[in-house]
Amino acid sequence: MKKHNFSAGPCILPQEVFQKSAEAILDFNGIGLSLLEISHRSKDFVPVMDEARAIVKRLMKLGDEYEVLFLGGGASLQFAMVPLNLMKSENGKAAYLDTGTWAAGAIKEAKKLGTVDIVSSSKEDQYSYIPKDYKVGSDYDYFHCTSNNTIYGTQMHEFPEVDTVMVCDMSSDIFSNARDYSKFDLMYAGAQKNMGPAGVTVVVVKKEILGKTGRDIFSMLDYQKHIEKESMYNTPPVFPVYATLLTLQHLENNGGIEAAEQRNIAKAKLIYDEIDRNPLFVGFAKKEDRSFMNVSFKILDENKKEAFDNAWKAAGISGLNGHRSLGGYRASLYNALNIESVQVLVDVMKSIS
Amino acid sequence: MKKHNFSAGPCILPQEVFQKSAEAILDFNGIGLSLLEISHRSKDFVPVMDEARAIVKRLMKLGDEYEVLFLGGGASLQFAMVPLNLMKSENGKAAYLDTGTWAAGAIKEAKKLGTVDIVSSSKEDQYSYIPKDYKVGSDYDYFHCTSNNTIYGTQMHEFPEVDTVMVCDMSSDIFSNARDYSKFDLMYAGAQKNMGPAGVTVVVVKKEILGKTGRDIFSMLDYQKHIEKESMYNTPPVFPVYATLLTLQHLENNGGIEAAEQRNIAKAKLIYDEIDRNPLFVGFAKKEDRSFMNVSFKILDENKKEAFDNAWKAAGISGLNGHRSLGGYRASLYNALNIESVQVLVDVMKSIS
Repeated sequence: MKKHNFSAGPCILPQEVFQKSAEAILDFNGIGLSLLEISHRSKDFVPVMDEARAIVKRLMKLGDEYEVLFLGGGASLQFAMVPLNLMKSENGKAAYLDTGTWAAGAIKEAKKLGTVDIVSSSKEDQYSYIPKDYKVGSDYDYFHCTSNNTIYGTQMHEFPEVDTVMVCDMSSDIFSNARDYSKFDLMYAGAQKNMGPAGVTVVVVKKEILGKTGRDIFSMLDYQKHIEKESMYNTPPVFPVYATLLTLQHLENNGGIEAAEQRNIAKAKLIYDEIDRNPLFVGFAKKEDRSFMNVSFKILDENKKEAFDNAWKAAGISGLNGHRSLGGYRASLYNALNIESVQVLVDVMKSIS
Repeated sequence: MKKHNFSAGPCILPQEVFQKSAEAILDFNGIGLSLLEISHRSKDFVPVMDEARAIVKRLMKLGDEYEVLFLGGGASLQFAMVPLNLMKSENGKAAYLDTGTWAAGAIKEAKKLGTVDIVSSSKEDQYSYIPKDYKVGSDYDYFHCTSNNTIYGTQMHEFPEVDTVMVCDMSSDIFSNARDYSKFDLMYAGAQKNMGPAGVTVVVVKKEILGKTGRDIFSMLDYQKHIEKESMYNTPPVFPVYATLLTLQHLENNGGIEAAEQRNIAKAKLIYDEIDRNPLFVGFAKKEDRSFMNVSFKILDENKKEAFDNAWKAAGISGLNGHRSLGGYRASLYNALNIESVQVLVDVMKSIS
């Protein structure tokens, strides 16, 4: 039976990526060796890293003022690297927007280094909306926001104008919509949603914002050190980088971010329309802030929960349970999920009401 | 033609690991989904992490006083995490043994946090031997050494008795010999030699040494935070962890570390005997400190270099060039390299003399 994988991440990737990356493990580029057993400095892998860095800029339509890094450690490590690289060592001060669990995690880490002002927060309303009532002045070293909240299913559809360096954690919606990426000075994202398998994090940074903290940073946490070595300061996570390149090539070959956005809009409309139509279900997020990536919803009649659960499992759907901190259901609609899978879920929802 | 992969890392792994990990990418455990598209908190992946942590302790014969972590970021990130977690925030002081490029890298990073005393160094002799003329007193927060030097081909065959916490970077010889691992309080190793593919680092730590610095550490750099979450503080590098588990299972099923050590001794003897016999070649490292993992050597007659290079390439050998900082040749004899491959190289060496 065909599987319909709504996992919040690590999540579905294009089938072609599974095929090609499995082949590379058995024999990489026909060289008679596995991708897993060759040097990262070999003539076979260096072009992989170079192309992975280049395709990110092509897809985002960014110029030479930006650098792309593929780092290990996960996006959570960026919660530390961002303040280490951007917050001044004396009287450092940053502005953070608190829109959910991941934003709160970033705030907690930045506080270990300097002053953090939370310019706005929707915590009191269980992060069900994106705050918009704030200004960020030039007295901050940087502003940090989280573009999409996987748990609560909210997404920033507009970004504020700020008078300082603009930083965004795009872990769960990078490459899913045609936002103006040049609006940001630093973007980062764990690969394991729209970009590739777990184990690598992309960092896209405008070079001019670096080197201004007066802080002696550990080399592995210093963006400049990684830039100088073209993202090969140390052995990179070879397989995750390769699988990420395959995923981004698939995106580029299928119309790029613009086409992906259109597909994502259609998928989101399909399920939100059913949630709004069907009295058995209710969406969690405020409508204007609904995420196109993660649809969090609840069932209103607990007596029908078992029937619903049985029905979606019988239809081959997996990964639909909500995050443990929120409960309910969560349908993640990442780039690689086809609209046919969303239709299967919507048909199940219709059958239960 | 059969390939003989002498790469210094990422390097050869058991063929079975390539087969099984490629299969897992196409269909993991028969669940109809790829290993790359399932949640790290799913019932299918959690046992992978649990078993990976358990098998490390079984192979090393360690008890419950130790914890095992699989972290992203590479062993180079440990150059920062070790002092952050072990060096006291006030008047912190650590002792380091300087045996090569990687030891020097660890020293450079630790100096960013506190006082570092280099208790001994072979730098003046181009790191061609392991210093043994030093003592480490209890006034140090910890002692750090590097068990094997991939570039210069030296290895610590004995470890000092020290009156403080004992830390060892075992990146290039972990699981290759039956040393007494319980002698160490903290061991770390990038996976990409004897353990698995690039993208994950194992840390084995005795719990009692943690929590004594008085420092508020970034969560992602705090061993205790990772221990509390059973190495799932954030999304782990799923595929590298799985391929590492497969490699360690292969080791356990083939006699464990003790049997691997016997195979490694035989492989090293074969090539060092030829280097000592053949007047055309000279080993780099002092004999008593020769590495069983990386054999660095030079050809004495430059006129015969081309013939030698052509001959080993024609024999299907790859990865034999020395590190760019030392030149010459380097034959890496990691666990997964069969003695038949060493024999092929030795036969080529004999044919040139």
